[in-house]
Amino acid sequence: MSVTRKRYYCPVEVTVDVIGGRWTPVILAHLKEGVHRYGELRRRMPDMSEKMLTQRLRELEHHGFIERTVHPGVPAPVSYQLTNDGLSLAPVLQALYDWGVDRASRRGIAIEPVT
Amino acid sequence: MSVTRKRYYCPVEVTVDVIGGRWTPVILAHLKEGVHRYGELRRRMPDMSEKMLTQRLRELEHHGFIERTVHPGVPAPVSYQLTNDGLSLAPVLQALYDWGVDRASRRGIAIEPVT
Repeated sequence: MSVTRKRYYCPVEVTVDVIGGRWTPVILAHLKEGVHRYGELRRRMPDMSEKMLTQRLRELEHHGFIERTVHPGVPAPVSYQLTNDGLSLAPVLQALYDWGVDRASRRGIAIEPVT
Repeated sequence: MSVTRKRYYCPVEVTVDVIGGRWTPVILAHLKEGVHRYGELRRRMPDMSEKMLTQRLRELEHHGFIERTVHPGVPAPVSYQLTNDGLSLAPVLQALYDWGVDRASRRGIAIEPVT
């Protein structure tokens, strides 16, 4: 995620600078469905390393797309949810989701969500 | 672009595997607007290296999202257009575009298309 670039030639470049990368849209798509505890996010994306998840979450929080809440308890549970800026991405996330569903069904690709 | 992966946990992962990466969605978004000569694509994405453009175009052609046509002439002009599979990405590309327009206007980011 690079938000420092000065010049863009196409609006799609702006969006890709924000949500480009392998995992950022996947994390956001899960959070679009509601608040998630850290452990839930880990479980739903078994192919992503813990280090990667932590980095992406920090970036997303830093750029104001998600909000991190620390709850009372030992160890203190941490949850994440989309901010209004994050919610503004809903149409993008939905389009990515819908196309993935179609593609998987046309190609016989199995999608097995972790619930 | 990796189309060999066996298991997915979320439809968004499928889409990102296909159109993830910095430039692939930008190339597709330009082609969504119509047939482009190779040189036109080069001009519209001044920040992308020629090597990168060639690689991305080859991948997109290999995976059936774009079609390459060699026209008569010396040197033979080459043009690219979306296939039906490529056109199926239109709602995704439009959502990426629309969000980029909004973001740029909220943030005072200049977008200067090369026409």
